[in-house]
Amino acid sequence: MALVVQKYGGTSVGDASRIRRVAERVVASRLAGNDVVVVVSAMGDSTDDLIALARRVSPDPPPREMDMLLTAGERISMSLLAMAIADLGVTAKSFTGSQAGIITDTLHGKARILDVRAGRISDALAEGNVVIVAGFQGVTSTSKEVTTLGRGGSDTTAVALAAALGAGVCEIYTDVDGVYTADPRVVPEARKLHMVSYEEMLELSACGAKVLMLRCVEYARRTGMVLHVRSSFTEVPGTWVREEDERMEKAIVSGVPHDTSEAKVTLVRVPDKPGIAARVMRGIAEHGVNVDMIVQNVSHGGTTDISFTVPKADLSRAMEVLRGLQDEVGAAEVVADSDIAKVSLVGAGMKSSPGVAAAMFDALANAGVNIEMISTSTIRISCVIRSSDVGVAVRAIHDRFHLSEEAEFRHDHPDGTAELPVVR
Amino acid sequence: MALVVQKYGGTSVGDASRIRRVAERVVASRLAGNDVVVVVSAMGDSTDDLIALARRVSPDPPPREMDMLLTAGERISMSLLAMAIADLGVTAKSFTGSQAGIITDTLHGKARILDVRAGRISDALAEGNVVIVAGFQGVTSTSKEVTTLGRGGSDTTAVALAAALGAGVCEIYTDVDGVYTADPRVVPEARKLHMVSYEEMLELSACGAKVLMLRCVEYARRTGMVLHVRSSFTEVPGTWVREEDERMEKAIVSGVPHDTSEAKVTLVRVPDKPGIAARVMRGIAEHGVNVDMIVQNVSHGGTTDISFTVPKADLSRAMEVLRGLQDEVGAAEVVADSDIAKVSLVGAGMKSSPGVAAAMFDALANAGVNIEMISTSTIRISCVIRSSDVGVAVRAIHDRFHLSEEAEFRHDHPDGTAELPVVR
Repeated sequence: MALVVQKYGGTSVGDASRIRRVAERVVASRLAGNDVVVVVSAMGDSTDDLIALARRVSPDPPPREMDMLLTAGERISMSLLAMAIADLGVTAKSFTGSQAGIITDTLHGKARILDVRAGRISDALAEGNVVIVAGFQGVTSTSKEVTTLGRGGSDTTAVALAAALGAGVCEIYTDVDGVYTADPRVVPEARKLHMVSYEEMLELSACGAKVLMLRCVEYARRTGMVLHVRSSFTEVPGTWVREEDERMEKAIVSGVPHDTSEAKVTLVRVPDKPGIAARVMRGIAEHGVNVDMIVQNVSHGGTTDISFTVPKADLSRAMEVLRGLQDEVGAAEVVADSDIAKVSLVGAGMKSSPGVAAAMFDALANAGVNIEMISTSTIRISCVIRSSDVGVAVRAIHDRFHLSEEAEFRHDHPDGTAELPVVR
Repeated sequence: MALVVQKYGGTSVGDASRIRRVAERVVASRLAGNDVVVVVSAMGDSTDDLIALARRVSPDPPPREMDMLLTAGERISMSLLAMAIADLGVTAKSFTGSQAGIITDTLHGKARILDVRAGRISDALAEGNVVIVAGFQGVTSTSKEVTTLGRGGSDTTAVALAAALGAGVCEIYTDVDGVYTADPRVVPEARKLHMVSYEEMLELSACGAKVLMLRCVEYARRTGMVLHVRSSFTEVPGTWVREEDERMEKAIVSGVPHDTSEAKVTLVRVPDKPGIAARVMRGIAEHGVNVDMIVQNVSHGGTTDISFTVPKADLSRAMEVLRGLQDEVGAAEVVADSDIAKVSLVGAGMKSSPGVAAAMFDALANAGVNIEMISTSTIRISCVIRSSDVGVAVRAIHDRFHLSEEAEFRHDHPDGTAELPVVR
């Protein structure tokens, strides 16, 4: 009997009729002979509703109590799903994160999973139940305090449980049917990817692909858990995320994610001497601001500009920190810019293929898009551009690399000089 | 430092601003030097909303999952209240029923409290926290399953915690400011009672007074916990419920509760022989129908009528059972009547005072109200009447016993023959 772990997001369990539809899918898997563990998020916008309620009570609620509050959300969806499954004649039991043995550290609001003690889950499976587990939540080991895992936490719960229980695959059901070469709302001819390596998926998630959160992919990579990202509304196969291996499609590039959630800050004309960047980043980090891209150019006349991107939500805090540091580090000016977008190109084959960056910059130039910042990894190139250019930019890059075609049919090299090295 | 246990009902925590108002009251008690434990119900109608949601998913949800679902309600109110208290600068920690050590039996939906293991509560108090506990919920001892206590469960949680922690009094905050001699919506001049004995309160609750549920009063009597029922919206003292003692006001009667939630069923002309009533009641009990009043009259020509009252919600089930038994017990007819009301007169002094029943029946007769069934205990008389007569009946009895006046000023005996034996 195979063990299947399925995770359903908030949209998939957004109302009573959708919960019943998820129940049918779960029951089908159970009746096909599988042991089934289901991880659920809170219904639709209910987590946001609870957050809004908390803000009406207190402008700055204690994180412990915030976690107590938010964990009510999955408690509701998990018990409703168990009811809907039972209504189809299949026994089901729901468990909170705490009951499911999701042991975390004590960082309320963004706890990390330290251990999974799934004894109660195993027992419930052995009794013949479908097991429903509340995603996004856990409990600390010694003080038994309830914690939440932060955004994307339910996916991580599912991967952690799948790994602890020895499942062969963790199915992530969501409201899109897989990972696409670009956001289909921006590029209508974007193509669904059949397989993506963990490394590519990490870069795609980090660069704005919303279908999977970074930490879930990290957890999957660390445990070697194969993910199958698919739609809860259709039966079509989705995208497999797994270890890169010889049999995998080695396209040069797999996707063009974009991100409009960030803003750019620049320290203008800071002295080009050791320790300045470190001082700035320490100050920013101490205030809990997440920095994404950091770019420092060569100096002119003994000064340089340091730019970096931060989430828009953190912009005012970041600016406050930088203004406090301006005199100490000797910057001429501190400038904020929230009208930016980041467009990236990700692909595991990129590292062995020269000319990809040139082709990407050329595509942007031909589309009349100005590049303001550049940063790269071995399998990714990211450019900061004007936010008003984002659609044009993504489509231009997507076109240039023929991403709407299946990889085996892409025969022209993106720089126009050679065949694309497709390996099966 | 005194320990105060306060319980707030759903109306008192119905929205964010009311939660903040409760927080102010809790903080005032804390700043006055008390250790404070607060038990909360779910916000407003949220429990009913969750029940409705469950019905949309399944017509007959498993009780275990129903309890998982419903316990989300107090989780939300308790964490919000903790936030509101923290916002006023006082440290507070919320605990679920399970975390608070409310150990129950395994009867999902109407579990009974078996034990209170309040170690975590004591620790949190010792650390200087105000402790908030989710009412209405507990956990089973060995299997650690989450349970709910049924209607009125939060009051019971409060009394159980107060008793386990050795509090001097358990304050029950609600949307009325105490226990009245009659429902003020029916009798505008109804008077708030200063003190009521456990026995009287049990009868008042059993006869339709909604301010306290029967089982909470039973628990308080068993543990000798003094209750103070008062309004969360005002500062005026409410009603004390405690052991009857020499210093208590010994009014003959303390209140005229009424109840319109029941229906009457009658087995017409059943043979008057041993075993018939037992057979009928066993059949009814086997189907989980709660029977309240049972009346059987003297026989005429070898047959008798057996009537009893059941909750209106159980009427169709009761009728089904009786129709199934009709031939077996030889009843000529089975009749249902849901247009009834029960009006009662309750008072600890009644047992030592003759003539109370006569005065009550006389008051009803003068008001033109026909009595259909009568049942009595040592401190209560209940009459079933037409539901359309209920207002007239309650006012007539309330007037006859001068219940709108303080007991010490009631000098005329209700039957008109003697002084009222008021003892201080």
